[in-house]
Order: sequence, then C-alpha cells, then structure tokens
Amino acid sequence: MLKRIRTQTAHSVLCYPVAATIFPTLFPRVQFDRAWELQSIYNELYCVVAGDEQWIYETIKDLFPVDHFAADLWEIHEKVKQAGGYVQDISAGIFRSDYMLQGGDVEIGLDANCNSSSDLELKQVEFNTISCAGGCHASKVVDMHRHLAKSGVYGSLTDDKSLCSLSSLPSNNNTESLAASLAEAHNMYGQPKSKVSTETAVLFVVQPDNFNVADERPIEYALWDQDIPAYRVEWGSDVLKYTSLSDTQELLFHPPWRGSQKPVEISVVYLRAGHEPHEYDEQGKEACLRLERSRAIKCPSLMAHILTFKKVQQALTVPGVLERFLAPEKVAAVRATFVPMYPLDESEAGQHARSLATDPEHAEDYILKPSLEGGGHNIYGADIPQYLSSIPRSSWSAYVLMERIPSPSVGNVLMSSERIDSSAVISELGIFGTCLWRKVGGQCDLLRNSTAGWSLKTKYADVDEMSVVKGFGCFDTPLLF
Amino acid sequence: MLKRIRTQTAHSVLCYPVAATIFPTLFPRVQFDRAWELQSIYNELYCVVAGDEQWIYETIKDLFPVDHFAADLWEIHEKVKQAGGYVQDISAGIFRSDYMLQGGDVEIGLDANCNSSSDLELKQVEFNTISCAGGCHASKVVDMHRHLAKSGVYGSLTDDKSLCSLSSLPSNNNTESLAASLAEAHNMYGQPKSKVSTETAVLFVVQPDNFNVADERPIEYALWDQDIPAYRVEWGSDVLKYTSLSDTQELLFHPPWRGSQKPVEISVVYLRAGHEPHEYDEQGKEACLRLERSRAIKCPSLMAHILTFKKVQQALTVPGVLERFLAPEKVAAVRATFVPMYPLDESEAGQHARSLATDPEHAEDYILKPSLEGGGHNIYGADIPQYLSSIPRSSWSAYVLMERIPSPSVGNVLMSSERIDSSAVISELGIFGTCLWRKVGGQCDLLRNSTAGWSLKTKYADVDEMSVVKGFGCFDTPLLF
Repeated sequence: MLKRIRTQTAHSVLCYPVAATIFPTLFPRVQFDRAWELQSIYNELYCVVAGDEQWIYETIKDLFPVDHFAADLWEIHEKVKQAGGYVQDISAGIFRSDYMLQGGDVEIGLDANCNSSSDLELKQVEFNTISCAGGCHASKVVDMHRHLAKSGVYGSLTDDKSLCSLSSLPSNNNTESLAASLAEAHNMYGQPKSKVSTETAVLFVVQPDNFNVADERPIEYALWDQDIPAYRVEWGSDVLKYTSLSDTQELLFHPPWRGSQKPVEISVVYLRAGHEPHEYDEQGKEACLRLERSRAIKCPSLMAHILTFKKVQQALTVPGVLERFLAPEKVAAVRATFVPMYPLDESEAGQHARSLATDPEHAEDYILKPSLEGGGHNIYGADIPQYLSSIPRSSWSAYVLMERIPSPSVGNVLMSSERIDSSAVISELGIFGTCLWRKVGGQCDLLRNSTAGWSLKTKYADVDEMSVVKGFGCFDTPLLF
Repeated sequence: MLKRIRTQTAHSVLCYPVAATIFPTLFPRVQFDRAWELQSIYNELYCVVAGDEQWIYETIKDLFPVDHFAADLWEIHEKVKQAGGYVQDISAGIFRSDYMLQGGDVEIGLDANCNSSSDLELKQVEFNTISCAGGCHASKVVDMHRHLAKSGVYGSLTDDKSLCSLSSLPSNNNTESLAASLAEAHNMYGQPKSKVSTETAVLFVVQPDNFNVADERPIEYALWDQDIPAYRVEWGSDVLKYTSLSDTQELLFHPPWRGSQKPVEISVVYLRAGHEPHEYDEQGKEACLRLERSRAIKCPSLMAHILTFKKVQQALTVPGVLERFLAPEKVAAVRATFVPMYPLDESEAGQHARSLATDPEHAEDYILKPSLEGGGHNIYGADIPQYLSSIPRSSWSAYVLMERIPSPSVGNVLMSSERIDSSAVISELGIFGTCLWRKVGGQCDLLRNSTAGWSLKTKYADVDEMSVVKGFGCFDTPLLF
C-alpha cells in the first residue's frame, strides 16, 4: 500500500496498492544465488570504507564547489569534530545492492535447449546505504505471487510446471530481518546512560508527508513484538523539537504525548529521511548535526551515508582502489559486478568520459548520473550531449558517466494504479544487507554481517527509469530457473 | 481497510481505513465474560432450532404473504425436498450474538466508589447466523489499540493506569478462530466423493462489488496457511457459471483459470453473500438451490440462515419456547439477555404491540424492525407511528417491535473517513461462535461448539443506527474494568 498524500486529512487517508507484476519474472537462479552470496562482501567493503575518512574526503572534495549537498554533509562532519567528535564508535547499516543482468542479446527462456543463464552476468546498478526502501513491499508482493501460484491461477497460462512450484518462488523475511538488525544494535547499545532516562528505544526518523509509511511501519511493529519500543519523528524541525542532547551526549526523545515525564534515551537512530538534498535546509542541517553528535547508534552514520553517492561507486571502480579495502579473492568477486564508470571532471579519465558523453553516437551507451544523489535524476543515452550543453561546463564534474547495462527483456504484465499493460520488461534485483561495526583505531571490527533479504523490481523495457512510485516499475518475484 | 468501490478499475482500487475509535471504550469485565460464556449456549440453541423445521415453518409462515424474502427462502427449501432432499447431514455455523448494556441511568466510570457494573445488564440486540462480518476488522483495531497502549500514547491523557495496561485490553484471534472452524468442517467432509475430482476446497461465496474484501481475505489466507485450498466466487450468476452438481450431488467448482482440468470438489460453502432480499432474483434463487442441494457442508445451511431473522428472535422470547430447545438452567441464562419483543400481527400480543407502536408516547421506547432482515432498515422511537401510517396495515405483520435498550454512554473520540469527533458514545459487543452439527433423525448432534472471538462496535450516542459502513459506528476495543 502507498498513502495517497493529497487526500490526507486530520482523520483519514486514502491508500492504494503498490504497483506489482501480475506474474513472477524469469530470473536465473545462479545469478540470484550469486547476488545473495556477494552481499556479505559488499557489506564488509562499505563498512571498511566508511571508516576511512581520508579516502572519502579525497573522493568527494572536488565536488564541494559544484554540489552543495556534498559541502553540506562534510560541513556537518566537520562540526561534529569541532564539537568534540563522535562519541559512538558503533555504526549500523541497512544496505541494498542493486543489480541487473548483463546480456541484452541473450534470450531468457525456459526452453531446455536454451542454456542462457550462463551467458548472463550480474552487474551492479548502485549500492544504497541510507533509507533503503521496499523491503516490506517486496515481502507483500512475493506473498501475493506465492499465493497465486498455490491457488493454481498460473496453471493454465503456461505449460511450464515451474510457475506453479513454490520452490521456484523464493520467499523472504525482509521485515523480520531488518527489524532483527535494529534489535541487535539496540541491544548492543545497552542500558540507558543518561541520568534522566530509565528506558531506551529505537527512533525512526521519517520524511513529512510520507507516502511510504506502509514500508516502514511493519519494521516498527516487528520491534514492538520483541518488546523493543520504537518511535518515529519527522526529519527537520520535529527532530529539533522532540529530541535533545544530554550533558553526556545521549540522544533524548521527549514524546509529545508524555508531557513532563522522563525522556526516552535513543539507542538507535534509523534514518528513513535525510537522503535528499532539499532536506538540508537550516533545520535539516541542525537536526543531522544533533543526531550525529549523539551517542545513539546511527543507521547509517554520516560517513556511511556519503558512501551511497555515485561518485563513491565510481571511485571504487578505479583500478587498485578495492585492493585498499578487501582481500584479493573478494576484490575479484566484487569487481566482476562492476561496469565501466567515469568521473566527468578535468582528470584524464574525466576527459575521456567527456568525449564519450558529448558524442551522440557513444553517449547512447551511457547514463549520466548526479554524483551525490540516490537516483531519480539520471540522464539517459542520447539525451546526454544536449543536457551537458545546457549546463555550465564547470558543473560537469558533479556527474559521473556509467555504461548502460544491456539487460535481456522478458514478457510480463505490469499493474500499477495508473494502468495495466502486457510488455517486454527488465528487472533489477536488490539484495538487503545488514551490518553492525565498531571503529577501533583505524580498523573496522565487523560485529554483524548478514544478508537480510531481497527485492525485485521490474519496469517496462522501453522506459529508462526504475521507479515504482512514478508508475514505471513494479515489485516482483523472481521465477528462478 | 474498506475498498472504495466507485474508484475500482480493471487494474487498481482505492481503499481507506475502516472507522475506529481513538481510545478503547470502558466496558465492564463481568459483562464481557458473561457474554463470552453465554455463546456456547446460544450456539447450542441455534443449532437445535435449525433442526426443527416444523417450528421454523410455524414461526415464519404468516410472513409469506407479506414478505417475499420469507416466501423465496421457503420455496427453495421445498424445492430441495422435491428434488430428493438434503444429502449433507452436517451443518456449520459462524454466528455472532450482539449485546448492549442495559442501564441508561448508570454512569460508567473508573471511580473506585462507583460500583456501576453490577447495576448493568447484558441484553441481546440480535443474533446473526449468516455472513457475520467484522471479525478481521475487529482484530486489526484491537491490535492498534494495544499498540497505542504499549507505546504509551494513552499515558498522559488519563490518570488511570489501566488504560496503559494490556491486561485490560483483551486481544482476539478472530481470523484464526473462524478459519479453524471452516478447516474442521473441511476435514470432516473428508476425501472427494465424486468420480471427477481428486481434491477438495472451501468455497467463499461473496457479493459482487464487495467493499468488505479485507474482512474476508484474511480468513481465506489463514486456510491456505494450513494447506486448505480456499476459492471465492460471486453470488448469483458466477455460482451458476463456475459450479455444477455431479450425478451424486457433489458441488464441483470449475476455476475459470483452469480450463479443462479436473474440477475441484467443494467441501464447505462459506456464505458471505445471500443475506439480502435483493440477492434473490432468479439467478440468486437458482444459485442458492444448487448450493443447498449439494453435498457440500453449508456455513450456514438454509434453515440456519432463516434463524437470523428478527421474527425468530421474537418468537424465542415467547414464554415456553426456549424450554422446547434447552435445558432449564440454560433457558434462564439465555432469557436473562432478552428484552421484550412483540409480533405486529393479528394475534393478541400483536394487537398489544400495535397499540404501543401507534402511540407516539409509548413508541419512543421501541424499535420497529423488519422481521426478515439482518438489520439496517429499522425505524426508531418517535418515527414509528408515522411510518406505520404510511404503509398498508396488511404489511404490518412483516415487522416486530423491540424494546429499546437504554444503554449508558461514555466519552470517546470516533474516527471515520468522514470525520473525527469527540462524543458521548454507546457500544455493542458481538461474540463470535462457531459450531458444527449433524442432524441425526430429529436430534442435533453437536460436533463443535466454540466461542471464537469478539468485536466491539461503538457509535455516537445520539445516532440510532450502528453502522460502521455508513460512518455512524467504529470498531473498538473494550477497556475492561
């Protein structure tokens, strides 16, 4: 379900079903399993990188003049250090690594003669470190597909028995797994440390006018079911209004309904907000600073948040970089999922990328992505040269250029609140990872490293952007073969 | 959730939250427990009465000329007998007995000096034997109230600690309990009996344009969770289109998505339709006849369906009648929940009722109810004399006159999709009962007799009708004291 924001009143709200495919979509089991196995390595990589402040600074510092978001976040980081530094050495992460299949001229099929899956490669679209959404929606949709398979609805539509077989439709426990990782962080925080609190709780920081509440609330309820209190507060002014820092930097939450009773000490701050540049007005910056300065375990911390940016993803593809963070065999596994990415700056690689991006013929094979955003503002293929010519050359370095992943399309029927259409479709597999790590000196001590679940999103093959909210994409279930 | 029917399209539908109270409503624990204990006696009563065709005929036969619904149902019963009689001697029931508290001048409160609950009496509003709704909604709302209590939201709004205590807010397992009764009926049906089927399933017969799907689907899913297939078909033409009777009267379901595969033999027909007069057009009658003629266990059977009518409720209040069906100690317990009810026919009691109903002063204390409906078309108090003068005197006997239950009001805040209001409110407690019985000769052999759960509905004190769908009432949780 998604909330229909414009219908919201003081007493009620309409909602509508989240977009979903009618059928599960063919996806090779070997690539699904591979993505699952890779997650613990990706978790490790990002936990280790998050601890390397120097590398992060070197990677993003050139963006400060051209992208205020980069500058804003780094300024908050500097302010934390000026105010005495970080007082919590444990960080939590709920990550999602997104992949597509590479092999656009391969036909995916169930034909026994078509040994196609071995010709396909798993390529990473992006790695998300903050506010990773869709876990609960994905669980609902797989439950739907599994129910339809059980009830025999798919039976007469295909001769293939596997569509009716539950073993081909993986279930997932995203909600419980994500809650379990927050619960572990909560337990690790331990007893209240401030003098004024006698209880601890997890705090969900959410966006105002939130259409995605049905993707967040189940995680909150799953915590309550374990007797872990979980509250929510809106990003920005409400964080400032309802929280405070104790003398010893515990984050205190003052529930508005409690009046003058004791505040609740926050063990874990789970961010489902703060990932968009517009959220960093003065109040947003101040809210972020307060959370970062506090003793609460952040999911994610500011350093881990910065890693979500495309600039970081691109920097990790530079030869030799992965070796700085991972053992050789892990480097190879991760690198195999990379596609070429380039900065669009004044460097040699950047000059090469600029020549590709401004050439209409070459540009066709690329996507231009803002360096510092989580997605949704990409420029695709043939549109790139014209777009670049419309902005000052000085701001080109705020972008990275990524090779398009030519992905095989299969048939499905997509159902959103706008329309229902039979179409050629392309899928994107997301793997959720959860971790918990302690920074000890310059080292990262991994306390938890789990693969938590998955989501599959499927869009029309002729639409570039994967967005369920905008009606281009649907939640889906892989039909493993 | 309720579906917003007028927004339904081929690919999507809007829905909105079912109306709920903001707070749980005070309700005396002793009366709650009493209603719970009474249910097994009521279950027994209605199972036994359902087997007494002669008594049912005598009770409703005078209505045939004035109410076509009575005549329609009895005609179907006669046709079943003409076609060879009932071939299934087991019946299932999902019942709901509704109560209000009597004692309008008693103040309900938590004041320790106010020993009010002992001055209150539990009085039955009606007994429902078909398509009893609200079980799943009620579970959702109690989960909400218990969550709000756990999260401390109620803490500062009252000094009373019991509002924060979960032991005062009973949980319920309506969905699982109702599914369990259907599962037991399914298992009792046993293996497929027809030559053409190899599997059995429960069939939900539902209304077209069904706003209440969120109250039905969870029961269906709970059956699937026990590996019992459950399908749904719409009342009327779809029943005729997708079912057939085998030579040996098994009910065969032909899922439209299965093509020419083997039909599914229906073990249990669960009716969430067929309870409204307008549903008995020619196709509705034919559908009902087919279901009744079949070997499937009906929940409820036609005889049990007829017992839902107000005329039957009134007839059971006639002195000496309960003694025909129950042991003396059970008679007393049931009778204590009755309020005076009268027929509005030519009998002596009817003449007395007519004098009450046509006198504006007396009429104030009564409700005029159609004899053969499940509710929603009542005439209240001062409106009765004028209403009766607007219809032919010959149709008066289609009504019963019931004394109003003066119920104590308490304060609450009601939230529906239309409005949110603080108000004096009055509650109605429903207790769900499930049973399974076999007719052996003239005797009723009770195979299952369970109290399955409860629902509490609360309305504005100044509104006569209790209707959640019309926005007058809310689902609620009793705050037991």
